Amino acid sequence: MQNLRLRLEYDGTDFKGWQIQPEERTVQGVLEAAITQITGEVARVLAAGRTDTGVHALDQVVNFSYAGARTPEQIARSLNGVLPPDVSILTADAVPADFHARFDAKHRVYQYRLTTRRLAVGRLYAWWVRANLEIDAMNRAASCLVGHHDFTSFCVAAQERDSRDCDVTLCTWRKLEPDTLVLDIEANRFVRSMVRGIVGTLVDVGRGTIAEAEVATILAAKDRRKARATAPPAGLFLKRVDYEV
Amino acid sequence: MQNLRLRLEYDGTDFKGWQIQPEERTVQGVLEAAITQITGEVARVLAAGRTDTGVHALDQVVNFSYAGARTPEQIARSLNGVLPPDVSILTADAVPADFHARFDAKHRVYQYRLTTRRLAVGRLYAWWVRANLEIDAMNRAASCLVGHHDFTSFCVAAQERDSRDCDVTLCTWRKLEPDTLVLDIEANRFVRSMVRGIVGTLVDVGRGTIAEAEVATILAAKDRRKARATAPPAGLFLKRVDYEV
Repeated sequence: MQNLRLRLEYDGTDFKGWQIQPEERTVQGVLEAAITQITGEVARVLAAGRTDTGVHALDQVVNFSYAGARTPEQIARSLNGVLPPDVSILTADAVPADFHARFDAKHRVYQYRLTTRRLAVGRLYAWWVRANLEIDAMNRAASCLVGHHDFTSFCVAAQERDSRDCDVTLCTWRKLEPDTLVLDIEANRFVRSMVRGIVGTLVDVGRGTIAEAEVATILAAKDRRKARATAPPAGLFLKRVDYEV
Repeated sequence: MQNLRLRLEYDGTDFKGWQIQPEERTVQGVLEAAITQITGEVARVLAAGRTDTGVHALDQVVNFSYAGARTPEQIARSLNGVLPPDVSILTADAVPADFHARFDAKHRVYQYRLTTRRLAVGRLYAWWVRANLEIDAMNRAASCLVGHHDFTSFCVAAQERDSRDCDVTLCTWRKLEPDTLVLDIEANRFVRSMVRGIVGTLVDVGRGTIAEAEVATILAAKDRRKARATAPPAGLFLKRVDYEV
């Protein structure tokens, strides 16, 4: 039995998120079906990040058990031959039997892209914000999120009882093009819809509808009702997952 | 009567090209309908470049006559309020009565993007070429296209009897990302499917299936059957049109 790791890219537009659900088109569902199709084995795939409906991934990491004799490279090539065009395998490799894509991930990097103009080309990969945004104010406000914090205020309300503590190591906006802003955010872990909750709040700082200092107050409140609207999924990308292995 | 110029962006994926056709969704058709909707006037729009089915535009230029009293800025805003999300007005301004978006254009700039890997995100904006490409060979071969030439060999076979002479002032490949190549090509004018004919041929040079020197021979032949396959439209962008006005 091999434990195989895949790195994959997907366009989240036409998926109901990562996690398999009956009657829904999900990335996990499509990937497990493709694995079964090429190996004849029933596969259960574990992912580093369970992205929500409409969220994209540039470099998601998963692992699964494989009883056959094909090499990881052969598996990657065969999967790309049967997967739909909105999912693509980047690489495959064999990892130790106890490797777990989720539990062993040391850092996750997400990216959120927004545009301040009515974009036609690439509109499925950015949130269109109809306002001029003060990027410096957004960055000053973002700086209070770096560090070890309880991010309850930025998660979806109905949350499992897991910890919402995360170590955020980077949270910075940069101007990609005159009309395009990108948030790079890095943490040991993320809780559900955390990036989109943070983006919605920081965009309100950029618009000037809440004060910069308010973000620290929202964080300290540990109450989702304090934060602003959750940003839409189209702008969000799981960009990278780092492991020691 | 005002002569209004619009700059617009569109995602060509779901359009049967620029030019209006009965029963087909075209950019001209959608734009003229939007103008009629907001002005109550029947509009006929002239474009700098009549892009083919599936071809995108980052900055197309058009003009049309408008009898009403609204300012160009108001027209732009109103159009963006009714246009579908795959067409976006960038700017509008009033131009002299004799301005003609096609005849007055001095230069057109196109861009062609291709990727050498199976792209999921952004796959509608690039041609996936399943090969390693020799970019230096492609650039050496491209250099013979710069200058004043008859581009018959790179046009679609069924062509109107217009001249196929073009002054190409730039034709260069560059590496945008490790897996993404972009051709920047600039000329006073382009003939139908010329960029895609050139790209198809230069990619075969990059693959090593035709010799670099062959491109000059193909150009000199003035015979479309000599060139290689036409590259698909998804990778092609009308990037800019330059005027003296």
